[in-house]
Amino acid sequence: MDLAEIGTRLELQDLYTAYAACLDTDALENWPEFFTTDCRYRITSAENYQAGLPIGLIYATSQAMLRDRVSALRQANIYEPQRYRHLVSGVTVTGRDSNGLDVTAGFLVVRTMQDGEMTVFAVGRYIDRVVRGGDTGWKFARKEVVLDSRRIDTLLAIPL
Amino acid sequence: MDLAEIGTRLELQDLYTAYAACLDTDALENWPEFFTTDCRYRITSAENYQAGLPIGLIYATSQAMLRDRVSALRQANIYEPQRYRHLVSGVTVTGRDSNGLDVTAGFLVVRTMQDGEMTVFAVGRYIDRVVRGGDTGWKFARKEVVLDSRRIDTLLAIPL
Amino acid sequence: MDLAEIGTRLELQDLYTAYAACLDTDALENWPEFFTTDCRYRITSAENYQAGLPIGLIYATSQAMLRDRVSALRQANIYEPQRYRHLVSGVTVTGRDSNGLDVTAGFLVVRTMQDGEMTVFAVGRYIDRVVRGGDTGWKFARKEVVLDSRRIDTLLAIPL
Repeated sequence: MDLAEIGTRLELQDLYTAYAACLDTDALENWPEFFTTDCRYRITSAENYQAGLPIGLIYATSQAMLRDRVSALRQANIYEPQRYRHLVSGVTVTGRDSNGLDVTAGFLVVRTMQDGEMTVFAVGRYIDRVVRGGDTGWKFARKEVVLDSRRIDTLLAIPL
Repeated sequence: MDLAEIGTRLELQDLYTAYAACLDTDALENWPEFFTTDCRYRITSAENYQAGLPIGLIYATSQAMLRDRVSALRQANIYEPQRYRHLVSGVTVTGRDSNGLDVTAGFLVVRTMQDGEMTVFAVGRYIDRVVRGGDTGWKFARKEVVLDSRRIDTLLAIPL
Repeated sequence: MDLAEIGTRLELQDLYTAYAACLDTDALENWPEFFTTDCRYRITSAENYQAGLPIGLIYATSQAMLRDRVSALRQANIYEPQRYRHLVSGVTVTGRDSNGLDVTAGFLVVRTMQDGEMTVFAVGRYIDRVVRGGDTGWKFARKEVVLDSRRIDTLLAIPL
């Protein structure tokens, strides 16, 4: 493994760490900055993903749509009593070409309610495409948030 | 830390990530490939491990036994409604000699049932011995899955 | 990213892994060794942290106070039936000067009771200051354990 390859891997770690920190600190206005202008973002279930179904719980085809989503969230939730904590594990490059990298990672999100109750809120995989750009050196051109669970109604509120 | 040492560490990260992905994608037929032909694999409790007891919930002394186990699982469970998600943290080399490395890591497994319920299924430590070989450059010559919990009846179904 | 920078990052990974392993193996007598003699250690809630309140659930201003705490814990809990498992994710350098580094990381702790029940015990962030020293090359000059939850009564027993 050469120095460039090692550097790339650590940059990807930084990308996922910064992404998680953005969501966990409720800095949602910065969230679209992790994506390219013509990005694709989707939250779907493992079942739908495996079946190749294009539907998703959230489906956005541009950074502008992600901004709209944050605006809507801010208007809907004046007070946000929950906290979220993402743990990301196993960031892996699964493919590469001259334009970018295919990357996967596992994630777990714990939600803490205002009364202190902590629950596993979501687990699953990120199946992503990254290209050069952004503060950490990479941006998401595509991010598929593939949830292990089909029970997704409560997820509508926040990005993952 | 020199380049060779850094490379080894990242290879080990790859090994544990690939191992977790194999189990989480239900690609159990590939699971024995992570082990040497004369491997030892054991799932045990922290209590039994600390007491030096050789017993385990699962105890295999060859790759062939791991293959048999997968076959048995496939026959017993035609339909597998659960999903598992491994998060591995803190992969560390604790010893080394000319033949291989001693490696430990922490793990957490979340199980998602078909109705969407997510629970912490298992937590514990891997206490492993790895040698050169395999796609990621390393294979498990020995893997001890040491569970924090003694309540292990439901664990019988799947490898960890 | 140059070799020195990569080395530093991997050393920090080692530091947090060793810290977690110390707590998870109940080697509490070694825990103060991760800190400088004039360290500051605090467990607080995200709410108090954001409000800039100096109060904490645990607040220590020296390594000696951490030692005292361990002694008190050992006298109070002759038998320790629980096990804890820390998963640390996203270790990141957020600042640096000639004396040391500012480092943050996310953590999740699962507690396993003697009857085998596993629960998410704590999630949050470490907001730390590290300086050169110790087995892993770094020691904590300051460690803020910022919990997502305000429900902290049961946390009094153990370090995090």
